Amino acid sequence: MELSEADLQADLDRRKPGKTRYETQRKEADQVKILSGVFEGKTTGTPIGMLIENTDQRSKDYGNIMHQFRPAHADYAYHHKYGFRDYRGGGRSSARETAMRVAAGGIAKKYLKQQFGIEIQGYLAQLGPVVIEKHDWSHMEKSAFFNPDPDKETDIENYMKSLKGDSIGARVNVIAKNVPPGWGEPIFDRLDAEIAHAMMSINAVKGVEIGAGFDAVTQKGSEHRDEITPEGFLSNNAGGVLGGISSGQDILVSMALKATSSLSIPGKSINTAGEPVEVVTKGRHDPCVGIRATPIAEAMMALVLMDHVLRHRAQNMDVTTDTPIVPAQKP
Amino acid sequence: MELSEADLQADLDRRKPGKTRYETQRKEADQVKILSGVFEGKTTGTPIGMLIENTDQRSKDYGNIMHQFRPAHADYAYHHKYGFRDYRGGGRSSARETAMRVAAGGIAKKYLKQQFGIEIQGYLAQLGPVVIEKHDWSHMEKSAFFNPDPDKETDIENYMKSLKGDSIGARVNVIAKNVPPGWGEPIFDRLDAEIAHAMMSINAVKGVEIGAGFDAVTQKGSEHRDEITPEGFLSNNAGGVLGGISSGQDILVSMALKATSSLSIPGKSINTAGEPVEVVTKGRHDPCVGIRATPIAEAMMALVLMDHVLRHRAQNMDVTTDTPIVPAQKP
Amino acid sequence: MELSEADLQADLDRRKPGKTRYETQRKEADQVKILSGVFEGKTTGTPIGMLIENTDQRSKDYGNIMHQFRPAHADYAYHHKYGFRDYRGGGRSSARETAMRVAAGGIAKKYLKQQFGIEIQGYLAQLGPVVIEKHDWSHMEKSAFFNPDPDKETDIENYMKSLKGDSIGARVNVIAKNVPPGWGEPIFDRLDAEIAHAMMSINAVKGVEIGAGFDAVTQKGSEHRDEITPEGFLSNNAGGVLGGISSGQDILVSMALKATSSLSIPGKSINTAGEPVEVVTKGRHDPCVGIRATPIAEAMMALVLMDHVLRHRAQNMDVTTDTPIVPAQKP
Amino acid sequence: MELSEADLQADLDRRKPGKTRYETQRKEADQVKILSGVFEGKTTGTPIGMLIENTDQRSKDYGNIMHQFRPAHADYAYHHKYGFRDYRGGGRSSARETAMRVAAGGIAKKYLKQQFGIEIQGYLAQLGPVVIEKHDWSHMEKSAFFNPDPDKETDIENYMKSLKGDSIGARVNVIAKNVPPGWGEPIFDRLDAEIAHAMMSINAVKGVEIGAGFDAVTQKGSEHRDEITPEGFLSNNAGGVLGGISSGQDILVSMALKATSSLSIPGKSINTAGEPVEVVTKGRHDPCVGIRATPIAEAMMALVLMDHVLRHRAQNMDVTTDTPIVPAQKP
Repeated sequence: MELSEADLQADLDRRKPGKTRYETQRKEADQVKILSGVFEGKTTGTPIGMLIENTDQRSKDYGNIMHQFRPAHADYAYHHKYGFRDYRGGGRSSARETAMRVAAGGIAKKYLKQQFGIEIQGYLAQLGPVVIEKHDWSHMEKSAFFNPDPDKETDIENYMKSLKGDSIGARVNVIAKNVPPGWGEPIFDRLDAEIAHAMMSINAVKGVEIGAGFDAVTQKGSEHRDEITPEGFLSNNAGGVLGGISSGQDILVSMALKATSSLSIPGKSINTAGEPVEVVTKGRHDPCVGIRATPIAEAMMALVLMDHVLRHRAQNMDVTTDTPIVPAQKP
Repeated sequence: MELSEADLQADLDRRKPGKTRYETQRKEADQVKILSGVFEGKTTGTPIGMLIENTDQRSKDYGNIMHQFRPAHADYAYHHKYGFRDYRGGGRSSARETAMRVAAGGIAKKYLKQQFGIEIQGYLAQLGPVVIEKHDWSHMEKSAFFNPDPDKETDIENYMKSLKGDSIGARVNVIAKNVPPGWGEPIFDRLDAEIAHAMMSINAVKGVEIGAGFDAVTQKGSEHRDEITPEGFLSNNAGGVLGGISSGQDILVSMALKATSSLSIPGKSINTAGEPVEVVTKGRHDPCVGIRATPIAEAMMALVLMDHVLRHRAQNMDVTTDTPIVPAQKP
Repeated sequence: MELSEADLQADLDRRKPGKTRYETQRKEADQVKILSGVFEGKTTGTPIGMLIENTDQRSKDYGNIMHQFRPAHADYAYHHKYGFRDYRGGGRSSARETAMRVAAGGIAKKYLKQQFGIEIQGYLAQLGPVVIEKHDWSHMEKSAFFNPDPDKETDIENYMKSLKGDSIGARVNVIAKNVPPGWGEPIFDRLDAEIAHAMMSINAVKGVEIGAGFDAVTQKGSEHRDEITPEGFLSNNAGGVLGGISSGQDILVSMALKATSSLSIPGKSINTAGEPVEVVTKGRHDPCVGIRATPIAEAMMALVLMDHVLRHRAQNMDVTTDTPIVPAQKP
Repeated sequence: MELSEADLQADLDRRKPGKTRYETQRKEADQVKILSGVFEGKTTGTPIGMLIENTDQRSKDYGNIMHQFRPAHADYAYHHKYGFRDYRGGGRSSARETAMRVAAGGIAKKYLKQQFGIEIQGYLAQLGPVVIEKHDWSHMEKSAFFNPDPDKETDIENYMKSLKGDSIGARVNVIAKNVPPGWGEPIFDRLDAEIAHAMMSINAVKGVEIGAGFDAVTQKGSEHRDEITPEGFLSNNAGGVLGGISSGQDILVSMALKATSSLSIPGKSINTAGEPVEVVTKGRHDPCVGIRATPIAEAMMALVLMDHVLRHRAQNMDVTTDTPIVPAQKP
């Protein structure tokens, strides 16, 4: 496959902070460098090594939190696990590690598009109380918030302004179109289980839904089941996954992201000696980390599907038929 | 560790259908047999092999669905994946495979209890429109529905009666108490990501939440963050996991289960030739699979924690301190 | 793929003790039972579960070694690892576990033969001082020792008779023919590394060679290198693996098996209290475990190749060409 | 653990070519750079990222072999696997990748030494016909060939001079002292199987032995078995591994390395069109790659033991007793 650093940079730039004044003002160059696995512009089939250097880390910004546990941060848990931690920006718990996920996901997205025609689209579905209703993809490309609803752009902007040092949660959705039927493994490594794993591994995600998700709790069986006709499925409550295996319908994933806990509003906490302290997080932080999570969620979806291709596909290569019996959806 | 088949049978009997008339009337003996790994009543440290035989499979019940795809079943996806399927009860996609999860989870539960004092408790939190409000564990033990709210037992029973051939979704919650802080791995194999993976791998689960879950979408950062005092945490929106690592607080998981799609109400579908058919599922099926999912969800939680002990714990055994700096929760 | 228990029983019977009076007189029925993954005589693509029951275990035979460590047995190491051990026949360290390897290998052999034309042939290459020189496969089928050299059958028999309570080592070779070029992964999971892993995991194996093996120590580069002509390779010092990847030539593996340490000749040892004891192993044991290792080694070769098909093949399925540019060997 | 780049550079310099005129004259700086996982001079417990840049690659040296397959190189196999290859120095099949193994092994060696007192020592045991007889470790430190026998230094030097464009194989041994008893897993991931895997994954290795190795073929059981007395084991034919698990004795490994196939002596081969060509490898190559393999083999031994600590140790942490009942060897 042809591959260059430019192929990956576009998504990295989408994830990069500093695009709007509502995001952290840290300047992260986020330039990806391909170290190996690509020769004369083409992948060699061997592993691809990449490096993204962190060029804007300011240790002094974090000095005051060295012996304190910021509420809702990984600090307290890391301290118990490792006994020693890199307090600068959270070290390994920093969302900076997602930059490499986006780079790796970029390779997967290109391959899946080229080989199977798979399209992966993420978007902001809700920001605090503001719920997105329209899906205008051309608007989304221009939106500072990955928001596909032109009528809600101002609402989001006003809500963000009103936060004043506080932060807010968000809901991000991802759609994968044209995934062939028959992908996924029964029992433990179901496609939906691997998607849930991948999405919940993104910093700040607290919930994951496939298809109808929590609406399924109150749906009757006759309502939830997606009936099938020769012209296609009549609904998509399953979210494209039946028995853990793709059905050829769109894969629909939705996730809840909590508000960042790096706030300038003081909060109660303790220090490593167990004494009470008041914590204020200085530095430059996103009022809504959910916004930037959109390209990360797309990348994770691409990586789950790519993992399926790499690990599982061979097993049934002789029998898997990528052409579905019926179309994904009745028009 | 001392281990006998009787240790595992209790949970298997909780999962077993046929306890109430609201569940499938298939008679599954679900007797577990330990084949290896236990010698003179004690585990030897080597893998434990177990066998549960299926004693009540009636092939003739399923003959009519041999060439049809039941809507919302795995049939259609399996057909595309394997090209050949064991149509009797769904074969590998049958929920019968969860019997072994419960047996394996039983070993893990016993070990975690004995070694770390960990307690795992699942319960029905919602059945269709009926929302559980009280948590009376002694009532739950008697309840036919794993329902901890004595005031709702009749509501649930009446709702189940009203279904008449249809089925309904449910919400099941699991709490893990006394998990030491410091369990879980950063980045991809976070404890919450592995829990999401495990729960989403249970048949019929369409959504998973940790702690505040989807409520986090509308929570502000100052509201979501769990402040810490020397007497303990002041809230548990995190659900016991910070940065993917346990904090010592209760681990709180909630999941949505769809209604079963094995209905006596006819539904539109196609056969393997792509022609329209009307499908009616005969046989003996649960009107709410969510009920029996409670011991399965407990087992999966136990297996995730046990997996952490087996795979990851060694890495930091020298520094991990299982004693939290502060109590789990301020009284 | 069509699959029945009979397909697997043939190799199990080859491994089974009691064929000649030179092998252990334990009666192991070694009947394999397929529990799952096969439906109406064909594999369903889902995992295949099998069970082989041990029908002739005599606990009393082993009672006297309960608190003693038999020299060169796993007893001493297991005691330190587990602190508690199933002393009946070595428990998990017993060569009985290889019965299941042979059954699993039988499935792999059938698939590899059918799908790729791969033939796997093991044979006894040396027994103590008796070195095999001819390779008469029809003789081997009749030989009680997997010996392909008709001129050496009596030598082996006489040597075995002369052992009188002692035991002897052996060399077993395995050839895999028609493995397509391009199988194996660079760096750590090279095909030869995985073969070495698999063979060294067989009880009693102390050394593994690929191709020229230890002869390579004294070969010059101009001598070792297998020159290539349009008619084929001129030699096979590489043993069919170049840079960890198959070349299309025969894969040649040789392994050393130690003499069994279950002897009626007394040996010095200690008990669990560290006190000196004299150990005599009663019971029924092979004077040369190397003989029965032949079908096990074939099975392990088949499993390594099958593992390659299952885990790795998908990655390069678009570019891998199974047709070699030149024949395996110049005639 | 305290860790700096200097800790790792010593072994990298031992592996580095150009120390004597008998090795390749390529100048590889082999400077390792730690990218992550170390903070303020101490490991944080999170993964350690390292980078070694290749500063002396000369593409023009390799241009003539672009469409040819060098005999006994990975070229032919890689071509079939990938259809496209980085012909500069063999790309991923180049022994340059072992530099990173040495760096990673350096971390493991430091940890194993500090935590368990484990010492890992590799040495040249044979070079072509010259067999090492003495084990003078202080001589080995000075030797240009990792040769511990002062009486053979001149023989080796003379033999190397006599090669004149040809190359020669070697035998390298590795000893691991003070490995606690009880390390390793039964059945497939035995300690000896993992060592065989690791050693066979080193470029040019064609055979691996544990303890008596191929000598076990002609040893009787009464001779091979290592008797045990309260003062220690009386011999070490097992090479420190019983039933796949460490016994507390020295772990003894020996491996055969083939002569490099990069020769200035012309050899027969074919090109990608299947036409006959004569291949001469220009460039700068080692006449005996076995020499530089010594620190690589030490690193692989350290990595196998470290892998055991990371993956397996937790499982039995409660029962494993690292103190052997008897000493490793009777004095």
